[in-house]
Amino acid sequence: MDSTKSGAKHRLQIVHGHVQKIIEMVDNGAYCIDVIHQIQAVRSALKKTEQEVLRNHLQTCVVEQIEKGESKKVVEEIMKVIEKND
Amino acid sequence: MDSTKSGAKHRLQIVHGHVQKIIEMVDNGAYCIDVIHQIQAVRSALKKTEQEVLRNHLQTCVVEQIEKGESKKVVEEIMKVIEKND
Amino acid sequence: MDSTKSGAKHRLQIVHGHVQKIIEMVDNGAYCIDVIHQIQAVRSALKKTEQEVLRNHLQTCVVEQIEKGESKKVVEEIMKVIEKND
Amino acid sequence: MDSTKSGAKHRLQIVHGHVQKIIEMVDNGAYCIDVIHQIQAVRSALKKTEQEVLRNHLQTCVVEQIEKGESKKVVEEIMKVIEKND
Repeated sequence: MDSTKSGAKHRLQIVHGHVQKIIEMVDNGAYCIDVIHQIQAVRSALKKTEQEVLRNHLQTCVVEQIEKGESKKVVEEIMKVIEKND
Repeated sequence: MDSTKSGAKHRLQIVHGHVQKIIEMVDNGAYCIDVIHQIQAVRSALKKTEQEVLRNHLQTCVVEQIEKGESKKVVEEIMKVIEKND
Repeated sequence: MDSTKSGAKHRLQIVHGHVQKIIEMVDNGAYCIDVIHQIQAVRSALKKTEQEVLRNHLQTCVVEQIEKGESKKVVEEIMKVIEKND
Repeated sequence: MDSTKSGAKHRLQIVHGHVQKIIEMVDNGAYCIDVIHQIQAVRSALKKTEQEVLRNHLQTCVVEQIEKGESKKVVEEIMKVIEKND
């Protein structure tokens, strides 16, 4: 769990720096298509981070909660996340 | 074009601040599902920014380049962006 | 579980008929954009069907398998499905 | 344009047959995860078909309409398609 946490934090810090660079690209009048490619790269990095956090959630919290008999809430939470996933 | 540029910049600055807050959430041991919802919100904001930039690109550069007879390159660039769009 | 099964079957039968109609649209030389809108509608219907099947899977098989101590396989299967989800 | 049309038709006919097979899988009580993988494969095939039709649209109708000075309508149509793209 702690390794997922530090992994997620690390990825988010890279995203944070990347977004800063895209702001500078826009300021410097970069070509639209280049800006779009960089935004897509950030979205892709965020998607991966999200999946890592979800995988960790499934492996820990979900298993624990189902073992305690609290499966309903846990399933609804996961489905909400998946349905919003565009 | 300048209004798109400043609109995109503004959105990216909000994203930048939002990512910083998610890093703090992770540091403070927030619930996985809450972290995921925040990452999804950022991805959604980035997708909107990307679409605004693309719309501006289509309305300006693409129209100009097609009028100059350079349609092939322009179409390939747009298709590349759309195919990477997940 | 049986209601999910018949619900999924019903949705898939509608999709089946819808695809047939799109083939006829293409045959009749329909406008590209109209064909694309219909394909998007079918993709959206399939995504909903997929989510219903997944929800049912989480509520039944996953809970049972985790209670039996077989959480690892189950989590990997779900993650594979989510990661392929574009 | 005709090769795109027959290519799209061919892909849609394969999708049509594939959906029929998934209905049979559901009837025969297939494992949820296997059904989901097949639905994902169909969605992916539909996405590719959609992109081919869009590419053809950009290469033909869009170029023609922009050359005629009708860029506004054409750009709006493309953006609508891209924004609905999930």
